Amino acid sequence: MDSSGFDPVQQMLERGAIERMIFEYSYHLDMNHPDALAALFVEDCAVSYAPNFGAVGMAAYKKTLEGIGSYFVATSHHNSNIVVDFVSSTEARVRSIVIALHRYRKERPDGYLYGQYHDVVVKVEGQWRFKRRELRTTLTADYHVKTFNPIGRAE
Amino acid sequence: MDSSGFDPVQQMLERGAIERMIFEYSYHLDMNHPDALAALFVEDCAVSYAPNFGAVGMAAYKKTLEGIGSYFVATSHHNSNIVVDFVSSTEARVRSIVIALHRYRKERPDGYLYGQYHDVVVKVEGQWRFKRRELRTTLTADYHVKTFNPIGRAE
Amino acid sequence: MDSSGFDPVQQMLERGAIERMIFEYSYHLDMNHPDALAALFVEDCAVSYAPNFGAVGMAAYKKTLEGIGSYFVATSHHNSNIVVDFVSSTEARVRSIVIALHRYRKERPDGYLYGQYHDVVVKVEGQWRFKRRELRTTLTADYHVKTFNPIGRAE
Repeated sequence: MDSSGFDPVQQMLERGAIERMIFEYSYHLDMNHPDALAALFVEDCAVSYAPNFGAVGMAAYKKTLEGIGSYFVATSHHNSNIVVDFVSSTEARVRSIVIALHRYRKERPDGYLYGQYHDVVVKVEGQWRFKRRELRTTLTADYHVKTFNPIGRAE
Repeated sequence: MDSSGFDPVQQMLERGAIERMIFEYSYHLDMNHPDALAALFVEDCAVSYAPNFGAVGMAAYKKTLEGIGSYFVATSHHNSNIVVDFVSSTEARVRSIVIALHRYRKERPDGYLYGQYHDVVVKVEGQWRFKRRELRTTLTADYHVKTFNPIGRAE
Repeated sequence: MDSSGFDPVQQMLERGAIERMIFEYSYHLDMNHPDALAALFVEDCAVSYAPNFGAVGMAAYKKTLEGIGSYFVATSHHNSNIVVDFVSSTEARVRSIVIALHRYRKERPDGYLYGQYHDVVVKVEGQWRFKRRELRTTLTADYHVKTFNPIGRAE
């Protein structure tokens, strides 16, 4: 399941904590809590939601979060299929998928995104945090973002 | 992750059992098994699906379940993002989210609900049960219920 | 939770490995990796997606996978509500649910499937594999397959 060599039971406990971090991300996004969202990332984070839509470093990331409240009436982010590979006891690579529904303030149909998150997470002072978060897009419908990081589906 | 102080491995085992109870709820709802559904709740349960749509106590709760078979041709309830905080080794607060799709017997479009469950669960005679279950609604489309417990999204 | 009698912590570790296999199945399906998909099954597997749509044995199963690349532009398979019952330390019965979205190469609306998987999984040479996988369909919209294994919802 991984090559890090640390105790399987401890890995399972850490996996539970990492999953919870992913769920807290979606919760605070849907609740429009940008500060709580940012607190899930390390200072030197790198985030890519799409080409030309992302951030390097906390200050830049906070700027990307500014539109959540004014742009959406509601969003709902559903995470599943979480696969964790530990690099060490304090770093892991995580793949998961998401269904994200967006209701806009503007008069337009709800936007759907189905995608994959590819994350690098690190444990700092006893807490797991996102170091790198990349969204790859499987497909969308009526979605406001028109460029995507591809999932790389085989032809 | 919680403040209950009991063994982390035991907590993980209990979390697994609580997640399973949430999945059994959705399974029996989608299979139209009202008796199996009711058996997941304690006698003095309190359930709120919306303002003026809920129940206090088992007898009242069973009444709310009577329409499942006659009202829907099919439903599908998908739970994820389950976060468990133990109050003690036999009580926990649980937050989760749901995608719920409803196909009606009447000629009308499928109804979608995206929401959060906020539960209080208790372990009685070795089995986890719902003591309190509250549905908060993030957004809906073509859904038959028109009033909601809000999620409290920040403005 | 089960009747197999083996150590609960070991069960939880095995459950994690089984969940991961289910997630790998969806990942390789969505990535159009038919060989990686087939490698998740034992040689004498039995798969039923619908009446008259399935396979007995690996050679037949590989044939059912041939259309993934040519038929779909994209698919997204979201698994949740996974319930594992161990028969022994190397065999389990697994129930889960899925939201499956299909975007076709042909000009037609996206096809949705909401369903249940009922699996028999076995551990062979240290790896969990599907021995039997049956899809039961709760409901669909605009989906290209028109016959279904029913979930058996009570009337």
